Amino acid sequence: MKIKVAIAGARGRMGTTAIEAIEEAIDAEVVAALDYKYGGLHLHNSSVNDGKHGIPIYTSLADLVAEHQPAVLLDVTDPDAVFKNVKEALELGIHPVVGTSGLTKQELDEISMMVESTGIGGIIAPNFSIGAVLMMKFAAQAARYLGDVEILEMHHDRKLDAPSGTAVKTAEMIKENRPPHIQGHPEEQIHLEGARGGDVEGMKIHSIRLPGLLAHQQVLLGGEGELLTIRHDSLSRKSFMPGIMMAIRKVVGRNDLIYGLEHIID
Amino acid sequence: MKIKVAIAGARGRMGTTAIEAIEEAIDAEVVAALDYKYGGLHLHNSSVNDGKHGIPIYTSLADLVAEHQPAVLLDVTDPDAVFKNVKEALELGIHPVVGTSGLTKQELDEISMMVESTGIGGIIAPNFSIGAVLMMKFAAQAARYLGDVEILEMHHDRKLDAPSGTAVKTAEMIKENRPPHIQGHPEEQIHLEGARGGDVEGMKIHSIRLPGLLAHQQVLLGGEGELLTIRHDSLSRKSFMPGIMMAIRKVVGRNDLIYGLEHIID
Amino acid sequence: MKIKVAIAGARGRMGTTAIEAIEEAIDAEVVAALDYKYGGLHLHNSSVNDGKHGIPIYTSLADLVAEHQPAVLLDVTDPDAVFKNVKEALELGIHPVVGTSGLTKQELDEISMMVESTGIGGIIAPNFSIGAVLMMKFAAQAARYLGDVEILEMHHDRKLDAPSGTAVKTAEMIKENRPPHIQGHPEEQIHLEGARGGDVEGMKIHSIRLPGLLAHQQVLLGGEGELLTIRHDSLSRKSFMPGIMMAIRKVVGRNDLIYGLEHIID
Amino acid sequence: MKIKVAIAGARGRMGTTAIEAIEEAIDAEVVAALDYKYGGLHLHNSSVNDGKHGIPIYTSLADLVAEHQPAVLLDVTDPDAVFKNVKEALELGIHPVVGTSGLTKQELDEISMMVESTGIGGIIAPNFSIGAVLMMKFAAQAARYLGDVEILEMHHDRKLDAPSGTAVKTAEMIKENRPPHIQGHPEEQIHLEGARGGDVEGMKIHSIRLPGLLAHQQVLLGGEGELLTIRHDSLSRKSFMPGIMMAIRKVVGRNDLIYGLEHIID
Repeated sequence: MKIKVAIAGARGRMGTTAIEAIEEAIDAEVVAALDYKYGGLHLHNSSVNDGKHGIPIYTSLADLVAEHQPAVLLDVTDPDAVFKNVKEALELGIHPVVGTSGLTKQELDEISMMVESTGIGGIIAPNFSIGAVLMMKFAAQAARYLGDVEILEMHHDRKLDAPSGTAVKTAEMIKENRPPHIQGHPEEQIHLEGARGGDVEGMKIHSIRLPGLLAHQQVLLGGEGELLTIRHDSLSRKSFMPGIMMAIRKVVGRNDLIYGLEHIID
Repeated sequence: MKIKVAIAGARGRMGTTAIEAIEEAIDAEVVAALDYKYGGLHLHNSSVNDGKHGIPIYTSLADLVAEHQPAVLLDVTDPDAVFKNVKEALELGIHPVVGTSGLTKQELDEISMMVESTGIGGIIAPNFSIGAVLMMKFAAQAARYLGDVEILEMHHDRKLDAPSGTAVKTAEMIKENRPPHIQGHPEEQIHLEGARGGDVEGMKIHSIRLPGLLAHQQVLLGGEGELLTIRHDSLSRKSFMPGIMMAIRKVVGRNDLIYGLEHIID
Repeated sequence: MKIKVAIAGARGRMGTTAIEAIEEAIDAEVVAALDYKYGGLHLHNSSVNDGKHGIPIYTSLADLVAEHQPAVLLDVTDPDAVFKNVKEALELGIHPVVGTSGLTKQELDEISMMVESTGIGGIIAPNFSIGAVLMMKFAAQAARYLGDVEILEMHHDRKLDAPSGTAVKTAEMIKENRPPHIQGHPEEQIHLEGARGGDVEGMKIHSIRLPGLLAHQQVLLGGEGELLTIRHDSLSRKSFMPGIMMAIRKVVGRNDLIYGLEHIID
Repeated sequence: MKIKVAIAGARGRMGTTAIEAIEEAIDAEVVAALDYKYGGLHLHNSSVNDGKHGIPIYTSLADLVAEHQPAVLLDVTDPDAVFKNVKEALELGIHPVVGTSGLTKQELDEISMMVESTGIGGIIAPNFSIGAVLMMKFAAQAARYLGDVEILEMHHDRKLDAPSGTAVKTAEMIKENRPPHIQGHPEEQIHLEGARGGDVEGMKIHSIRLPGLLAHQQVLLGGEGELLTIRHDSLSRKSFMPGIMMAIRKVVGRNDLIYGLEHIID
């Protein structure tokens, strides 16, 4: 039997790619879409129609659940809508799978309590790219042995913010794993402000922005006489699909809240 | 109390570096050297003297053990001498730590049986570089999710053999970890013999040889829309020292035979 | 006054991108399209219409020229159509700009003779990416000083042929520039067939094919104690547009045949 | 006939390597050393002796020239001694070849005037690595077409100053070559101070310092849909020898002052 999935954010580019990925899988299917507009219409190839072609659209999650009994709600909307959707899903007994880093500490706490009281497990992942998550996991692991670390992230110059969320998250994961460590030369002389990058506990983060780049990160870990570099290049949102499918498959058996794909990758 | 270490191969470059590393450690010391020549002399800064300066040299391991009671024999000789040394060490109750890939299957089996019967644990590591071992370990782990793999190893052009032992070992570790997988395009057309590299179960190995290189390896793991690259650069034999020290510290508490540093790194 | 450009192959993806690029330029405009189908219709946003919306389509270059007097014919069709189009353009006094490596030696000779007799200059470029051309040019120049060279090209695994045309072209350009040179170790021992790559005069070419790659090439040039690496990453056909625009601007002042963008880049 | 070379700074590591390189060349020889100590002794394998073994040492350049008539003075001393040596060489009609970036503007001007009045050409090169000079030259050339540039330099963590002189010099060479250009996103938001590196006219310079690195630089040049990367890795001072030999050979035919190896590489 296939895992029945409802999707919120289905009309967006991530939603479109996710629907394709779920439909290609032999063990899952999209049964309905949750959408604040277009209730009663259908969604086919990322456009809506009134000819009952494709996936039925609902404006109410309760109605959607009553008619289609999904096991999972995949939410690829924006941070504003996510919190409400996740709460409703848990109340209705549906496992939420969410890919956003935009939830506040307070919202996460509330979700966590609801998961505990309902026993309906959920997965919230700031990054659904398995490659990116492996990079962070490996970097944190390696820093136990090679404690001198610098992080270089490179993105196209249309990206507004620096450094990237992934770079900061990587530094934090390393911080929790490496033994107390002071890195760099204590008498360093910087002749051009900023040349040595941004500092997170001695780890330097460098952000490159150029046309011709997509989304890339390198973690460099140095030891006496050797260097270990872990690099991830991300070309398209298709790279998130294996992580989303893994989350859909694993969430149905869970009664706890999992934050971060790294906890279901082994 | 410091771990007492005897060393075979002390006069070589690896031996010299290892003695320095052990002497710098606060929890280990070199008590004597095993050397087929120069019995009765002393070794200081990689040259022998008859002035009792430095480490005493023995031609017989039994004599060395009788006088100095080392806990560990670190063997950095060549494959020819290693086997005899390891057997003697086990007979005398000394833990062998060995860095060679040159032992035959039969020799390894014999050592394994001796370890079992004596209860004296030993560590044999084809590669004592923690960075290189982490690269192989991570690559094998990542290949469970990103199953399309190519390996690129780069060495100076004085290296005679291709591909490197590490590249082949990496491919083998990946083979054991990734699910059954056919990679590459079935209709590939190769217009220049060898351009697609050497093949190990579909994984391609490419060997680059140039002046200006030292010893480098990259493992490239591709998935739809993403690429994970794990790279190790090795500059000097100093990079082997943390691995050797880790082995010395761990072997004293073991009663089994450990083959490969990856089994004591977590 | 703007340079008037006629385009053959306008409905393809390269044609669509080229039309956008020309229309964005302040000194050029697309006046008409040459297309074996759809004569009399118009082309707008890569689809044809009969409402006179967009660029007028002609099936005959003579008619097109009679009505629109273009200075340049940009041909982004396939090798089959190119030769005929270029000959007609030259006869009609129009400068051809062509991006293909598919013309035979004989066809090139014939074009060359026509250019000489008509005095109408043309540009034929196997690669319109300025970055790729700079990479090849720099590699050839550097090989005069750093004569040991290996070429690594990496493409997605849907690419059928190996090695890439650019890799072979790079090797040829280096061959013409570096002094006579034997590279590599004469006693090299290859334990896995193909590991050392394909050979072009001692230069090794290595082709990597993985999902998650697009189109990349590295030229590694080694010297005693140093390595120079020139790398080009190509993400989209937009990277060809600056080269196409440069060719359009330069061809109108020429009376000779230029083969390769490298001859108009300085 | 061999080019006769005198050397100042012969006892240092660079001097030792340079003597080896000159002696290996078929068209040059070291005739004497200039040294403020050890006058009258000889230098052999980087140690002095009183047995007339090796190269004769002089404390006065005038005496040295009177007895050995060198054509070239190779100065590999420190910035303090260089200026005096170069002036004396020019007065005595000897071509100076100097590898330092430590001369002041005023000193360079004075040397320049002396070269003009004497007609004795000289070469001063802040960097004798041909690979590094090619990297800078190519980067400057490429920036005419790919104007968005970031520079990443990576050195071992014992290097005190950041950014490296080569990185700054590269940015300056690019500045002189690229058309006026504003790069980066005007609305960029930096959440971690220094993350975007140091700024030189919009070009960002990033300095990485880690054990396990030697001396490396990458220049990244981005265009729409493409990236060109020029990387130089420097492993040992042997990489300076081809540049030094080239300077020795070219200086003897010159009557002008050449500043920078890039002007004698074509």
